[in-house]
Amino acid sequence: MSAPRRGRRPGAPDTRAAILAAAREGFAASGFSRTSVRSVAAAAGVDAALVHHYFGTKDDLFVAALALRVDPREALLPVVEGGLDGAGERLLRVFVSVWDDEETRLPLLAVVRGIAEPAGQRLLRDGVMRMVLGPVGEALGLDDAPRRMTLVASQLVGLVVVRYLLAVEPLASMPSEQLVATYAPVVQGFLDGVLPG
Amino acid sequence: MSAPRRGRRPGAPDTRAAILAAAREGFAASGFSRTSVRSVAAAAGVDAALVHHYFGTKDDLFVAALALRVDPREALLPVVEGGLDGAGERLLRVFVSVWDDEETRLPLLAVVRGIAEPAGQRLLRDGVMRMVLGPVGEALGLDDAPRRMTLVASQLVGLVVVRYLLAVEPLASMPSEQLVATYAPVVQGFLDGVLPG
Repeated sequence: MSAPRRGRRPGAPDTRAAILAAAREGFAASGFSRTSVRSVAAAAGVDAALVHHYFGTKDDLFVAALALRVDPREALLPVVEGGLDGAGERLLRVFVSVWDDEETRLPLLAVVRGIAEPAGQRLLRDGVMRMVLGPVGEALGLDDAPRRMTLVASQLVGLVVVRYLLAVEPLASMPSEQLVATYAPVVQGFLDGVLPG
Repeated sequence: MSAPRRGRRPGAPDTRAAILAAAREGFAASGFSRTSVRSVAAAAGVDAALVHHYFGTKDDLFVAALALRVDPREALLPVVEGGLDGAGERLLRVFVSVWDDEETRLPLLAVVRGIAEPAGQRLLRDGVMRMVLGPVGEALGLDDAPRRMTLVASQLVGLVVVRYLLAVEPLASMPSEQLVATYAPVVQGFLDGVLPG
């Protein structure tokens, strides 16, 4: 057996992994907005153009760094395409379809478990607000979108923790249709209800 | 300086600490219901009567092991004493008064941060459901109390994570009166609204 080769080799299979590792580290340490493709490239010892070549935009790179099995931007298309009417129910349906499926749930739970540390908190915050709920609020054209979407976040994150992470019964075993019917009105109220001044 | 003395000395100042450590370990490893005062006493090398002498009931011991600054059973008295009408708003007021105060918030956040590991998940689950929400649901005489209280848990836990742990704006800086007004109707709906079958 030859010794493993060391050093950075642009284009080699592990360059992609090095970029991903640098991206994850950067996003975790500094948050999404303060991490640039340039800084990730520098940390991985490659050119920024190569990062774009492999991963596309900074948003794409962030999604890749989270190592999810589903791109939230695609999964959420049906939510925003139908407009504000019924958006709460459609959002719950996407949420349940992603979280009730073990294959997509496990990588997401890994992100949620990072919550204990500041780095994991930054990843989760950026993941939830920037990749999932922020764009939905903008696309739906909500008034007061940031406030409304953090309210939605507070319900969905709590649902993740209590149903999927802590597995508290009977919520953990509630059939998905009942879950959607229970939470859709709450989420819809946060989206278009009257908020206290 | 004399070397620190070793061994277990019933009644000595560190006996109390040894019991608390054993309790915390036991509750975390096995959950509340499978941990007995007897097993905690054995792990600490003392008699069960001594545990009762220092800490009272198993519920008291659990609260002491969580090292909170407030006993949730006392804090929640005003919620249940007023009956079901307005209970959502009173629960939110207690919640905000405890969580907006740094002195009571920090020990609670330490429990929430334990969420990454199974032991911490058991502590949090028992803490939220057994010490806080379970008794409220029973005292209010709710029909379908377990389901209703896990729904309430899903909203309050999410609020803890998004407002206090992740500190997502604008929810993190929302004035407490506005917070109560925003969430009280949701919690009241979970308490006494019509639930899907």
